[in-house]
Amino acid sequence: MRVLGVDPGLTRCGVGVVEGVAGRPLRMLGVGVVRTPADAPIGDRLVLIERGLEEWLETHRPEFVAVERVFSQHNVRTVMGTAQASAVAMLCAARRGLPVALHTPSEVKAAVTGTGRADKVQVGSMVTRLLRLDAPPKPADAADALALAICHIWRAPAMNRLQQAVAAHRTTKGRIS
Amino acid sequence: MRVLGVDPGLTRCGVGVVEGVAGRPLRMLGVGVVRTPADAPIGDRLVLIERGLEEWLETHRPEFVAVERVFSQHNVRTVMGTAQASAVAMLCAARRGLPVALHTPSEVKAAVTGTGRADKVQVGSMVTRLLRLDAPPKPADAADALALAICHIWRAPAMNRLQQAVAAHRTTKGRIS
Repeated sequence: MRVLGVDPGLTRCGVGVVEGVAGRPLRMLGVGVVRTPADAPIGDRLVLIERGLEEWLETHRPEFVAVERVFSQHNVRTVMGTAQASAVAMLCAARRGLPVALHTPSEVKAAVTGTGRADKVQVGSMVTRLLRLDAPPKPADAADALALAICHIWRAPAMNRLQQAVAAHRTTKGRIS
Repeated sequence: MRVLGVDPGLTRCGVGVVEGVAGRPLRMLGVGVVRTPADAPIGDRLVLIERGLEEWLETHRPEFVAVERVFSQHNVRTVMGTAQASAVAMLCAARRGLPVALHTPSEVKAAVTGTGRADKVQVGSMVTRLLRLDAPPKPADAADALALAICHIWRAPAMNRLQQAVAAHRTTKGRIS
């Protein structure tokens, strides 16, 4: 499976494409950052993010898009921008009929490092090792986007089994009632 | 000036188009709600909002889009959806080169009722009176969208003067240094 990971942000939106299946070595197809000027009107910044993400989708044709799930307990100003950038990412994916998966920061950290409380450096060095890169991708947003894509490749089989179980349970209930 | 007001929300996104200038009677050109099913994936809901808003922009060709400014001190779950829906509204407007203005809920209430702490009923009845409607638009999201458009028509002259003053000040500073 080929996954585009998106670490949403208005100033720096991390993007990374990873191909592979759980249990096999993974391959990085691309990594980068979509940037927008902090002094531009918010609408124009969202248009720049949309254009940047469309280029990545067009170039790499991923089958899945994994976006970091945004929480609002963090810094108030930052979180609104993050939520808005993530909306653009989900919109671009869904418009192409691509499934969108959301993973929390701790799910991503736990998937790639083994602990949900890993720091940026640990995530960066595990991403470097897992994708056999020469150096950790910079900035951190780019490394985080790759970690999201890796997390999705590894979590997807379990998530699919869970969804199938829920669907089967619903069907059974439907039959009984 | 013709303004599309958008009261952003994932389940109900209020939209209203008002035409007029400050100090003259205003005219409502349209009001409605873009709805999305609560059980649909978030990406699909954002696509439905985009399509709905594009229809409104296409039909009414507003010159300005006024969107409610989202704060994150409210309910955590709701505010993320509101931020995401507002991102789609700002994106659609900016993509067409339309200026986007953000107004806070209390600025809107103060503009149409005279007090920033007015309730839904007061806002609805003032909107009804100002636009000479037969009854308050329903649901409240639709009335709020009209109130946003009215607020923008009335506040725009002052906002423009402020922006011009800031720009003039910057130019003067540039000359001195």
